Amino acid sequence: MEAVGMSRAERTILTNMCMVSDGCGNVLMQNRTDPAWPGLSFPGGHVEPGESIVASVVREVYEETGVTVLDPKLCGIRQFWTDEGERCIVFLFRATRWEGGLRSSEEGEALWLPREGLLQRNCVREFADTLRVYEDAALTEVFYPGGQVQYL
Amino acid sequence: MEAVGMSRAERTILTNMCMVSDGCGNVLMQNRTDPAWPGLSFPGGHVEPGESIVASVVREVYEETGVTVLDPKLCGIRQFWTDEGERCIVFLFRATRWEGGLRSSEEGEALWLPREGLLQRNCVREFADTLRVYEDAALTEVFYPGGQVQYL
Repeated sequence: MEAVGMSRAERTILTNMCMVSDGCGNVLMQNRTDPAWPGLSFPGGHVEPGESIVASVVREVYEETGVTVLDPKLCGIRQFWTDEGERCIVFLFRATRWEGGLRSSEEGEALWLPREGLLQRNCVREFADTLRVYEDAALTEVFYPGGQVQYL
Repeated sequence: MEAVGMSRAERTILTNMCMVSDGCGNVLMQNRTDPAWPGLSFPGGHVEPGESIVASVVREVYEETGVTVLDPKLCGIRQFWTDEGERCIVFLFRATRWEGGLRSSEEGEALWLPREGLLQRNCVREFADTLRVYEDAALTEVFYPGGQVQYL
């Protein structure tokens, strides 16, 4: 590691996502209405400037579903690049303990759905890639170099 | 999560660090000579533009120690801000399997040291904070809002 401060900074969009499992085979989903990214997805959103990554995922899951996760654990990364060449990092978290009831937001309906058969539903683009990182213990990252999918 | 592309990007310095454990109570360290960040630390370094996070940690550990880690797993985050207000994210990895022998680099001597007593040695600034995230299963992040340490 070299000294920080020589400005090795790059323009990066930081986001989060959380797989909340109820222990009975169901996962917490949001049915997103945004035309740019429509469909079923785990809840999540942007990290705000100055914000903790862990705090950001707790906040976003709450805003989108009414559920407050109590044990968010980082388990992976999704990375892609925007058309403007900005790196986008999605911090993938999982949680199994939460409090609060279900409440939808303007961004879409919040609902519990069975994990079984989830990919046969109307999921967001590339959701299967993300789910694979969550569920294969040997994987940490899904990444799209030159538009191709790669797992590490 | 809102649509990506409205440019929510922020200037971010992305780095990695890896705790490699030999299963016999020793961890792989680098004795850094850089005057800006001197002392004993886990090996690690910058993520290059366009690079996978996992690939970056494998590359940096190899460059600094000659050791190729085979099972790097993401386990936490360290975050701080530079004096220029750039967010710096350190992706914390652990590994227990590797190949290759020990070789030092220009950046400092590579060596195995007992975990026991490590913090009584000449470690880099705030190394104890980082080690706490590695070793407390309830923690994911160490973070310095307004210069104060906070664990999440």
